Amino acid sequence: MWFVGVDGGGSKCRALIMHESGRIAGEGVGGPANPLHGFERAIESIRTAVDEAAQEAGLTPAELKQSVACLGLAGVNLPSLRRQMLDWAHPFASLRLETDLHVACKAAHGGADGAVIITGTGSCGLALVRGVERQYGGYGFPVGDQASGAWLGLEALRRALLAEDGYRAPTLLQQALAAQSSAGTLHGLLDDLAGQGSAGYAKLARLVFDCANEGDATAQALLRKGAHYLEWLIGRLETHHPARISMLGGLAPLWRPWLSETCGRKLSPPLEAPQLAAAKLARAQTLAEASPIFNVQ
Amino acid sequence: MWFVGVDGGGSKCRALIMHESGRIAGEGVGGPANPLHGFERAIESIRTAVDEAAQEAGLTPAELKQSVACLGLAGVNLPSLRRQMLDWAHPFASLRLETDLHVACKAAHGGADGAVIITGTGSCGLALVRGVERQYGGYGFPVGDQASGAWLGLEALRRALLAEDGYRAPTLLQQALAAQSSAGTLHGLLDDLAGQGSAGYAKLARLVFDCANEGDATAQALLRKGAHYLEWLIGRLETHHPARISMLGGLAPLWRPWLSETCGRKLSPPLEAPQLAAAKLARAQTLAEASPIFNVQ
Repeated sequence: MWFVGVDGGGSKCRALIMHESGRIAGEGVGGPANPLHGFERAIESIRTAVDEAAQEAGLTPAELKQSVACLGLAGVNLPSLRRQMLDWAHPFASLRLETDLHVACKAAHGGADGAVIITGTGSCGLALVRGVERQYGGYGFPVGDQASGAWLGLEALRRALLAEDGYRAPTLLQQALAAQSSAGTLHGLLDDLAGQGSAGYAKLARLVFDCANEGDATAQALLRKGAHYLEWLIGRLETHHPARISMLGGLAPLWRPWLSETCGRKLSPPLEAPQLAAAKLARAQTLAEASPIFNVQ
Repeated sequence: MWFVGVDGGGSKCRALIMHESGRIAGEGVGGPANPLHGFERAIESIRTAVDEAAQEAGLTPAELKQSVACLGLAGVNLPSLRRQMLDWAHPFASLRLETDLHVACKAAHGGADGAVIITGTGSCGLALVRGVERQYGGYGFPVGDQASGAWLGLEALRRALLAEDGYRAPTLLQQALAAQSSAGTLHGLLDDLAGQGSAGYAKLARLVFDCANEGDATAQALLRKGAHYLEWLIGRLETHHPARISMLGGLAPLWRPWLSETCGRKLSPPLEAPQLAAAKLARAQTLAEASPIFNVQ
């Protein structure tokens, strides 16, 4: 008996195949797999990652067809997308769908309850305690996702443009952002960003930390605003009494020094990779169903 | 000899046909005509408006083919779009392209120099003095256009969502915005807005004024922020010594009471419609070319 765990992300997708003994048999990587940004593309990326993992594990398509999979994917809490995903002629015996956030939270705490803050392209907070799930933020770009990469990029560019016009004090962000464009100007950057969505803005986020470290007051004020939100989020998640809180995502290490020591001490490192947690979820559910008296989860 | 003036806007397009004597012979209306939001759609809307105006004026297609047109359109300052527009097999003898802002500014001051602030779906400031054109803002959604309708809608929804999560104090905006969605919730509004772009957010702008008038502190603070920017913009435009400054666009009357009396006194009412100003530009240029010694503009 084989179990497949998949972590679908906006930039890539990771799959892992686990034997019923718990042994990790194979791993694979695919392209972007956020079904909200393209259903067909996500399906294709999942297939690529799963096929690669199956090959490494030495699984035949027939054996894969007997496997149980758990996929962590953005948007599968929306009924229409969930239906579309379940209608997919998937290569497994059965398919369990969880949100990417749910899987990330389970993974961060080694399968146990807890809370997470995710700050990458987007941002959000999730508490998962005694079967109750509570989410904060995560409303998407451009309206939500405070302290995310896309938010930082958007707010930095807003401030740079206002400085360009003379409405705000000059900032290092003006030159730093202009240098990111193919044309070397802020106008050029606007052209480059057209139609790119949140991912394009998120690519600018690291610059804000760089400029702040060089002493730029505008960048520092923006980071303080983001850090204030993250600190509030930590406090909000604490009201649900999670055993652990982790901060995940590509920007997490960059935000860490901007949080107060008190807040920083409340964060615990994530324990396992989401694709591993997804495979474990598939395995635990199957074994629990096989012997209903003995719930291994 | 006939002259055609067209004012292309994001929600509709207006055309006007003028006889060489200056007499207005016909008018017409078409759909959205912002070529940045769809080139084919814009062309179609312009044709509809021009055909309607030609019919009212009693012009045959052959007579229209002898006419000189001036079109005020967003984006025609971009070389690629300008080229695409000039390559259009238009129904006129010749075509002059101006930005919608340039035409709006000329119109506001009856063909003379001056400055304008436009606040509708987007926002920007323009000074047109002695042949020199200087623009402020107008960088587009979501990064620019402070004090525009789309900016107000976006910022209001951001604040309402943060209030929903408990990060900000409760605000009347939460209920007012939720009531705008088909589902009656803020989540429903997010779904409704997906893929709608700036126009969808701009539809929420009036609510912010309503909530502020009902005493909501969040809405009031947001409007003060927008008014602060508009007041700065008026001051910035003044440095170019325009004879007049007008504030145009659907939100202009709503912003007026939020500006200081000193600033408000600096604003003059717009004098003519943009499609009329466009027709006059076409006529003035043609007559000037016909008798180069006597420049009628």
